[in-house]
Amino acid sequence: MIYLDNSATTKPYKEVLDSFVKVSEDFFGNPSSLHKIGGQAEKLLQQARSQVGKLLNVKETEILFTSGGTESNNLAVKGIAMAHRERGRHIITTSIEHASIHNAMVQLESLGYEITYVKPDGNGFISVESIQKEMRDDTILVSVIHVNNEIGTIQPIKEIGTLLKKYPKAFFHVDFVQGVGKVPLNFYEAGIHLSTISGHKFHGLKGTGALFIKEGVRLSPLFSGGNQEWKQRSGTENVAGMVAMAKALRMTFEQSEKLNQMEAAMERLRSGISQIKEITIHTPMENRAPHILNFSIKGLKAETFVHALEERNIYVSTTSACSSKKKAASKTLLAMGVPQDEAESAIRVSLTYSNTIEEAEIATKAIVETVKHLSEVVKK
Amino acid sequence: MIYLDNSATTKPYKEVLDSFVKVSEDFFGNPSSLHKIGGQAEKLLQQARSQVGKLLNVKETEILFTSGGTESNNLAVKGIAMAHRERGRHIITTSIEHASIHNAMVQLESLGYEITYVKPDGNGFISVESIQKEMRDDTILVSVIHVNNEIGTIQPIKEIGTLLKKYPKAFFHVDFVQGVGKVPLNFYEAGIHLSTISGHKFHGLKGTGALFIKEGVRLSPLFSGGNQEWKQRSGTENVAGMVAMAKALRMTFEQSEKLNQMEAAMERLRSGISQIKEITIHTPMENRAPHILNFSIKGLKAETFVHALEERNIYVSTTSACSSKKKAASKTLLAMGVPQDEAESAIRVSLTYSNTIEEAEIATKAIVETVKHLSEVVKK
Repeated sequence: MIYLDNSATTKPYKEVLDSFVKVSEDFFGNPSSLHKIGGQAEKLLQQARSQVGKLLNVKETEILFTSGGTESNNLAVKGIAMAHRERGRHIITTSIEHASIHNAMVQLESLGYEITYVKPDGNGFISVESIQKEMRDDTILVSVIHVNNEIGTIQPIKEIGTLLKKYPKAFFHVDFVQGVGKVPLNFYEAGIHLSTISGHKFHGLKGTGALFIKEGVRLSPLFSGGNQEWKQRSGTENVAGMVAMAKALRMTFEQSEKLNQMEAAMERLRSGISQIKEITIHTPMENRAPHILNFSIKGLKAETFVHALEERNIYVSTTSACSSKKKAASKTLLAMGVPQDEAESAIRVSLTYSNTIEEAEIATKAIVETVKHLSEVVKK
Repeated sequence: MIYLDNSATTKPYKEVLDSFVKVSEDFFGNPSSLHKIGGQAEKLLQQARSQVGKLLNVKETEILFTSGGTESNNLAVKGIAMAHRERGRHIITTSIEHASIHNAMVQLESLGYEITYVKPDGNGFISVESIQKEMRDDTILVSVIHVNNEIGTIQPIKEIGTLLKKYPKAFFHVDFVQGVGKVPLNFYEAGIHLSTISGHKFHGLKGTGALFIKEGVRLSPLFSGGNQEWKQRSGTENVAGMVAMAKALRMTFEQSEKLNQMEAAMERLRSGISQIKEITIHTPMENRAPHILNFSIKGLKAETFVHALEERNIYVSTTSACSSKKKAASKTLLAMGVPQDEAESAIRVSLTYSNTIEEAEIATKAIVETVKHLSEVVKK
């Protein structure tokens, strides 16, 4: 099996699962319990939080554990919108966000908020100027994705953050889900107030995530209750899941020494498929993440192509996993001005550190042959 | 170790952890992915949903998976309140709910909803009449806990549900977290629209839960995004966690053949400690769950007692785990009219099916001796 759909989900590291089992078995207490079975669990949770904070270069008190990227994104956007609605009801985001930001914004619109969706340029980049132009006195939040999940472009987060320092009434949220462990981002330097990560995107477990919340930033919680997680996210903490996520994050950072290998594998794929005349590559050469490659195949439906590659035990995706079942065209490509039929034939290949150059070579050969074969079938 | 704090959290069954590991390793795909790695995960998720539906005697399409009891409670209460706010803004609940209901209600109050908190009688029971008295034309939701998490009283859910059938504008939510697997409840018969369960309370894993949502009931989601879980709860599904929860639920139902043993252990505890003159038992004899016993020890701080028992490797709790760190008195006891100092000295013992009569005997002896010892220390 050659699994090249790592932006949809990754296989958990074995050590991560081992930690999960160990904690679940030996430290199963409720961290809120007063006795030592609870105290042991609480200590492990605190260690996980400290580890995640260190790896992201922030204070551990700024790390809030959640059930995943979608929760973190919704908590950031709705939590700021609800808590600061007296200050203003205008929010700026982009038209190339993950569905969990986009649809949270749509929901806020129905509650009386005004949302501005900034468009990218033809290469999939949001410009600082396009954000600046939309800033208003009642803008309370700007939310921009770091590495776009469909085509892999890296947005100018630091530059946008620098701009936003001139607007102290607006909070800055960054969806860091695809970037973490692959494209560095310093939250403090970039003036970020909130940032989302998701455990299962870096070989942690599904159902785990975190939200960075800069000290002093106040949210309205989605989950009220026992006041866990700095009173911002109630509910018995998934201690084993968070220990596992902290370990996955550490291991992913350690893996980054294999960045050259991942880049070489990507280069092999890119140069190989760029020879095919039916293929248009959408991921630009510059300012893009090392692990995502998006391209369209003229005249072929993306789904057909995914299934054809699957026959060869190679796994890629159409658009983002969250949207693939709807068979909708890539939202990012459409926002970039890519024609509908081309956007509907888009394929995303997404790597992780363990993908080898050999795998890239096999995949490239398979893609070339499959395009050739399917194109002939279509012509008949 | 004698662990008698099973209402705070339970130790996962070994088989449950095994399933979690198996699914995480061998079926790690994103259920939304089009390829077969995704398809296999989706199939497992569907099987888990079907299994949970069968065990709860409802349709699988009525089971929505969540990250736990707090999420399910918040989603039910806020989801109904937001989706049906044009119909009315009055909600009825009780003053003996879990913090995740109580604090969600407080949050809704700040958003302009009017909440009525119905009080229990002196034994911890909510009467049907006390609900009926508060029903109004703009009442959109009634939320009542099934088995109270602090003292174990079983509320007259079926009777309240029968009453509510006369009020078609009001939805009925039941927090079933403490009851599931121990005190049967038929959702359809009781006219329930929404009901909450939490995986880690029945030997599943933390970070897993479900919300029963009766067919046709519309919610406003807390998590928007990729439209998973019937568009009511977006986010990549925790497939392994849900398979594990389904297994834990099945095993718990199978364990119920040990109900006699659990009841005998409880009887042993109850009769043993009722001999102690310093102890007042709050859990009534009738209409109470088989696994929870709540009592106060005159003149002793609950925390001191918990730590003293811990020295003997016996683990009990003060109030609910979620509230124990605040060192607040039991909310349920105060609502019942128990004096403040007595409520502050309350201890909760909570069993599971694996607790034996021998454990109950050792615990009873320890409780008797500890009360005697601490009372003497206090007197000095």
